[in-house]
Amino acid sequence: MTDFRPPVADLAYALTHVVGYDRVAELPGFEHADLDTATEILEEVGGFMAEVVAPTNRAGDLEGARLNPDGTVTTPTGFKEAYAAYVEAGWGSVPLPEAFGGGDFPRAIGLAIQELTMEANMAFSLAPLLTQGAIEALLHYGSEEQKQAWLPKMVSGEWAGTMNLTEPHAGSDVGALTTKAVKRPDGTYGITGQKIFITFGDHDLSDQIVHLVLARTPDAPAGTKGISCFIVPKFLMNDDGSIGERNGVHTVGVEHKMGIHGSPTCVLSYEDATGYLIGDENLGMRIMFVMMNSARVSVGTQGLAVAERAYQQSLEYATGRIQGRAIGATQDSPIIEFPDVRRMLMTQKSYIAALRRMMLLNAVQVDISTHHPDAATRARADEIVGLLTPICKSFGSDLGNELTSLALQIHGGMGFIEETGAAQHYRDVRIAAIYEGTNGIQAADLVGRKLGVRNGASFLEFIATMRELDGELADAGDEFASIRAQLSTSLDMLEQTTAWMLSTGQSDPNSVLSGSSPYLRIWGLVVGGWLLAKSALAARELDGDAIAATQLPMARFYAEQLLPAVAGLVPAATAGSRDLFALDADALGDVVARRGARV
Amino acid sequence: MTDFRPPVADLAYALTHVVGYDRVAELPGFEHADLDTATEILEEVGGFMAEVVAPTNRAGDLEGARLNPDGTVTTPTGFKEAYAAYVEAGWGSVPLPEAFGGGDFPRAIGLAIQELTMEANMAFSLAPLLTQGAIEALLHYGSEEQKQAWLPKMVSGEWAGTMNLTEPHAGSDVGALTTKAVKRPDGTYGITGQKIFITFGDHDLSDQIVHLVLARTPDAPAGTKGISCFIVPKFLMNDDGSIGERNGVHTVGVEHKMGIHGSPTCVLSYEDATGYLIGDENLGMRIMFVMMNSARVSVGTQGLAVAERAYQQSLEYATGRIQGRAIGATQDSPIIEFPDVRRMLMTQKSYIAALRRMMLLNAVQVDISTHHPDAATRARADEIVGLLTPICKSFGSDLGNELTSLALQIHGGMGFIEETGAAQHYRDVRIAAIYEGTNGIQAADLVGRKLGVRNGASFLEFIATMRELDGELADAGDEFASIRAQLSTSLDMLEQTTAWMLSTGQSDPNSVLSGSSPYLRIWGLVVGGWLLAKSALAARELDGDAIAATQLPMARFYAEQLLPAVAGLVPAATAGSRDLFALDADALGDVVARRGARV
Repeated sequence: MTDFRPPVADLAYALTHVVGYDRVAELPGFEHADLDTATEILEEVGGFMAEVVAPTNRAGDLEGARLNPDGTVTTPTGFKEAYAAYVEAGWGSVPLPEAFGGGDFPRAIGLAIQELTMEANMAFSLAPLLTQGAIEALLHYGSEEQKQAWLPKMVSGEWAGTMNLTEPHAGSDVGALTTKAVKRPDGTYGITGQKIFITFGDHDLSDQIVHLVLARTPDAPAGTKGISCFIVPKFLMNDDGSIGERNGVHTVGVEHKMGIHGSPTCVLSYEDATGYLIGDENLGMRIMFVMMNSARVSVGTQGLAVAERAYQQSLEYATGRIQGRAIGATQDSPIIEFPDVRRMLMTQKSYIAALRRMMLLNAVQVDISTHHPDAATRARADEIVGLLTPICKSFGSDLGNELTSLALQIHGGMGFIEETGAAQHYRDVRIAAIYEGTNGIQAADLVGRKLGVRNGASFLEFIATMRELDGELADAGDEFASIRAQLSTSLDMLEQTTAWMLSTGQSDPNSVLSGSSPYLRIWGLVVGGWLLAKSALAARELDGDAIAATQLPMARFYAEQLLPAVAGLVPAATAGSRDLFALDADALGDVVARRGARV
Repeated sequence: MTDFRPPVADLAYALTHVVGYDRVAELPGFEHADLDTATEILEEVGGFMAEVVAPTNRAGDLEGARLNPDGTVTTPTGFKEAYAAYVEAGWGSVPLPEAFGGGDFPRAIGLAIQELTMEANMAFSLAPLLTQGAIEALLHYGSEEQKQAWLPKMVSGEWAGTMNLTEPHAGSDVGALTTKAVKRPDGTYGITGQKIFITFGDHDLSDQIVHLVLARTPDAPAGTKGISCFIVPKFLMNDDGSIGERNGVHTVGVEHKMGIHGSPTCVLSYEDATGYLIGDENLGMRIMFVMMNSARVSVGTQGLAVAERAYQQSLEYATGRIQGRAIGATQDSPIIEFPDVRRMLMTQKSYIAALRRMMLLNAVQVDISTHHPDAATRARADEIVGLLTPICKSFGSDLGNELTSLALQIHGGMGFIEETGAAQHYRDVRIAAIYEGTNGIQAADLVGRKLGVRNGASFLEFIATMRELDGELADAGDEFASIRAQLSTSLDMLEQTTAWMLSTGQSDPNSVLSGSSPYLRIWGLVVGGWLLAKSALAARELDGDAIAATQLPMARFYAEQLLPAVAGLVPAATAGSRDLFALDADALGDVVARRGARV
């Protein structure tokens, strides 16, 4: 056991009172997923994660996954048992189609389950996460035969899945990949090449691993247009459905990383491995985006989840650590009584609440975009998902770094000692800003692909939606006055910055890209402030609810003390590209050019 | 060899053209320390660090310092040889008194040498750093006999020094320490207790280690007023000056830390160890502050130094890594051509330059405060040191975390792989925000001790000094217009926030403490912007100088895109304590209270 306390109550509060889960539960196909049922599941999942998975987190960090001399990969002590229990309980299948053994629950509930898994053990959570990405790609693009062959055991979790994109010279630029796929007479393909950074690329948790591999057929067009996606199982399947001989894929390395040691990040070598084409040739990028878009929100959720775990630990430390005497105290005080420690706690707590609401809002929109009977409603929800996804990914993972740093800081010197565990959270979460598209790529996606949707109308309509809260805030009286004022000011700035982006974009795309990261951060701050304001408004009618009681102070702290950062970011978002390109590489390295020189 | 390039040219530029080193070189006692001589020394030091010390950095991280079964501590491969060469070259003694074998150079040059050492290997640099702290305490408070006995070999570096403050229940609250010091008939004291987090508390670099230990005599007053400071050598000295038998101090543990693995952080057990009182009984806190104040600027410099090393690495990676195609490019581009990567590079470069100028300014003021013939000038310099020290420590170490994170981010997935080395910088520098007084303690010091000096006049005069640049910026024309405007706006905000702090302080100290961290950050941002503006103004008359050529673009980027963050911080600095204390510990942990509860 650890002292991890699954934040099920706040998840339920956010679903019920902030992101409109009731709309989802009314959608055709989700009738069984009413809030009571969903909350019951989350409570069970929370208990499971606290009791079974959370205790593996520390051993996972200390031992790490390892590559054995015989080429097999062993996960840390406890992972195998925890994964078996996870499969047995069926948590991974909850949001997946009933046709393949799933529970047909909404994405919103699936994401909440992911959050709880990530809080328990981020490294462990990657195995089911990657499997789910592979499942989604197969659901969208697989043939009926492929679905029947692979999905049931992937949905149950008995088989794991992976995503094989990156190669040494093809990271952010996926189009540069060179892994070859040569069609054979029997219709299968021979896959040859090397893939790196493959999360859970090999392990001992499941009998079979289903790799989805991006590769290039011999006559394929250059770049991203010539990429195809293949199923390449670790073991070939016999005709009777039993597992056959080893396929031509081997682990040649497991990376030594700063964090998530329990997750084996593999270098995989494919040597004429048998692959089965998904969809048609050259559809690979489209399939990849199905996997990626869902994964990106999940990665943002990692930032939130690890921050939550670290926050709980720092709060406990701050409550128990007696050190010095606070102003007005008559005896030595726990450090939680010191204002600056309070600032670190409130900053963590309110950002975490904002992020949780943002991730769930995104998931609710995914559910609407897939299940709503009205096509226009589906289309609009899809636009909102497109807008929110890069924000969730980047803002969530950036804050993951910043908030775990605050949690570590609260521990003082103990935070830097590995035994305390605070450092592990800080190290683990650092990858989230990098993988599934670096945060810079997300910002480029926001201004490059998403901003232009309907010439900016998608963004402007979302801003208008956020403005609709103003009337309710006005009616709510003095207690909400500062929230209303700050939110209104920030929305003005967001709108003006968006207008600048739209007017600049056509003529000067480099200037728009130059401001993309600060612009994304502005979005994150404003959406977070809007959701906390909604959350606080809803709380007024929930007397006696412990979560409700904290919403107004949190929303006010966020509005008054965190949201004003928007004003500090607007100049950078709209500064254009001149300053960024004023110095060339030599000038940027002037200390290099001047080595040993006298001034 | 590594690819570390010592930034000697920028150090020399900053000393010459920004922080007024000429004033220092004119002071009595520093006539030999003219700029040419000092620069020559820094060039030699830079070369030494690049060739001898920098190559030990990676092994230091991989191997770490270790406690052997026999209780001895071994430093990583190469440390011993590098330290011997460092002592042989005499770099540590450059800023120390000639009377004890030093070079009598100004603190400014000593700090520049420290920066270069920290860039080469932060963990290694701590051995001489702690020795220097112990030397300064002895110089100020030791008896003549003590100075003669201990200082010559400490100044040369043959003997190392340590600072023993922290105990398990006495961290930030030093006054809570319980280590006992019992006076013996011969005038020595028997020291008994346990100290933790002792940097280089034991090692194999030197024959002798001179511990300065804070302890409490039996009848001492409670709290900080009852602390005394003792010299407790690892080995007792024989009458003939040779090293005698082992004293009663033993290493009972070496911590397993997130970073600076090469630096042995020891748990030391004192059992009736022989100690020699420094000064009088109960002077311990005053002596500690002598050590601490100098160390705090050095710790801020660690943030700068590790950021510089990480920046160099990220610049090299960005120049060489080909990935995708930048806008307008006709072939695949190095990632340095992408605007968001540029933003990360420019952010690093300009903050690093600002920090270097800030640290050196502080050191120059130290030199004026100790060597200027005019008492009033000395006193004012001392006030400025008091103001700048917490800012240098916190802003420098916070930025150390943020900038090494940007350097890591530029590496993409490779940044998370330990072999790349980017992760080590991120892990190493994380301690700087914690030790020598957490950054929260620094902020409390800024508003609690320093702000009140002459009822705020010290701060307001410094702001007025910064405002004096306005005329020069106005005369400098259009190129400096945005710098002038932003600096002026930021100075207004700093002044208004300071006025709020002064008017609130007496009646509501908790509100001042509540805003202390954002207030300190505002100070750091503004002082940095002011120094870069000075730097850019000076550059106008230095045609053909590579460093000078980068100053205006850097200062403009900083003023236009980083300095505006001040506006986002003012509300938090002046918000008071209400929001921070609105939730009690139970409410902060509402997920706890609601565990398993239904909404």
